Amino acid sequence: MSNPIKQAIESRVSTNYYDPGRHLSDDDIMELVGQATRAPSAYNLQNWKFIAVRSPEAKARLKAVSYGQQKVADASVSFIICGTLAAHEQLGQALAPSAKAGIMDQSVIDGWVAQATRTHTDNPELQRDEAIRSASLAAMTLMLAAEGMGLATGAMIGFDSEGLSREFNLTTTEVPAIIVTVGYPKPGNWPQKPRKPLHEVIEFA
Amino acid sequence: MSNPIKQAIESRVSTNYYDPGRHLSDDDIMELVGQATRAPSAYNLQNWKFIAVRSPEAKARLKAVSYGQQKVADASVSFIICGTLAAHEQLGQALAPSAKAGIMDQSVIDGWVAQATRTHTDNPELQRDEAIRSASLAAMTLMLAAEGMGLATGAMIGFDSEGLSREFNLTTTEVPAIIVTVGYPKPGNWPQKPRKPLHEVIEFA
Repeated sequence: MSNPIKQAIESRVSTNYYDPGRHLSDDDIMELVGQATRAPSAYNLQNWKFIAVRSPEAKARLKAVSYGQQKVADASVSFIICGTLAAHEQLGQALAPSAKAGIMDQSVIDGWVAQATRTHTDNPELQRDEAIRSASLAAMTLMLAAEGMGLATGAMIGFDSEGLSREFNLTTTEVPAIIVTVGYPKPGNWPQKPRKPLHEVIEFA
Repeated sequence: MSNPIKQAIESRVSTNYYDPGRHLSDDDIMELVGQATRAPSAYNLQNWKFIAVRSPEAKARLKAVSYGQQKVADASVSFIICGTLAAHEQLGQALAPSAKAGIMDQSVIDGWVAQATRTHTDNPELQRDEAIRSASLAAMTLMLAAEGMGLATGAMIGFDSEGLSREFNLTTTEVPAIIVTVGYPKPGNWPQKPRKPLHEVIEFA
């Protein structure tokens, strides 16, 4: 009776054990990132970058900066999802396709760029919040997109941020916000863990 | 041909215009939050709180601290989604249902609590990242859950954080990370805005 989206949300598990013999095609990887980028971001900043780690050599480097977690070696692909700082500087370019499609007037875009520039410049906390927020919205979309494609996922924040930035040549404006492993599960994964009672986290106003 | 999740992801729009005459039941609101809390969080911290703003009086207060944006008045409900700081302090309690369900051994839980305490204590940046990250993962899940229920949504970060915290009595550990409006769309909303070309945001390793 459950709708397919509810079913995906409620059956998703944080996968730790993957079948290391299964691969994903470039097309599937592009499809996952394509859906992930449909996530919303403030002003449609799209201040994100996805590094698809899938070669044995790159997986070994990622494992080394992820405290030796085997799942990044066994998953078909691990996405390092970065949010980017100083995102207002590229907002005009990010919105160019909306102007070209005739959805937004250039004057509206100019207004958004001016407003984002005013609020983001010299506000490192907002820039970092925005990087983490956009990357996380995209990461969740990617995880549910993967469910829709019959794939298992796991979100990870257990990595050495500095080491990862060095190994994958991130620029100073690229903040690794979260890693999402994707692949085919092996037996032995936990089920989805139970959550707090709803009344503890909801308030009506 | 498209699977229902992909379809939801690709047809979701950031709604600005809602039918102000449509309401959501308490059951629907609980259902949305219930699905949102199925999002993953580091260690299953579940460091989030959802304030469902739906009374005319509370909507007026939210509109006042959201730079007068009419959509929070017109949407059936607006969720103020907070991430919480010092989340490690409540991790043992957050994982108690997993112990009770026999999914996690108490010794594993104790190890996680020790590790989270070690890394989070005296690390305000990580605490804030974790608050924004968990709240954003939950927010995206809520938006897609709403799609599955035939509802429209919009994510908003245009609010005065201090004013909102005061008006809704947030504690010092509750960070308002994002607002998600939910309801029934009126005509006149933008379609989903186009995204950057994929090759600009993806890198293979």
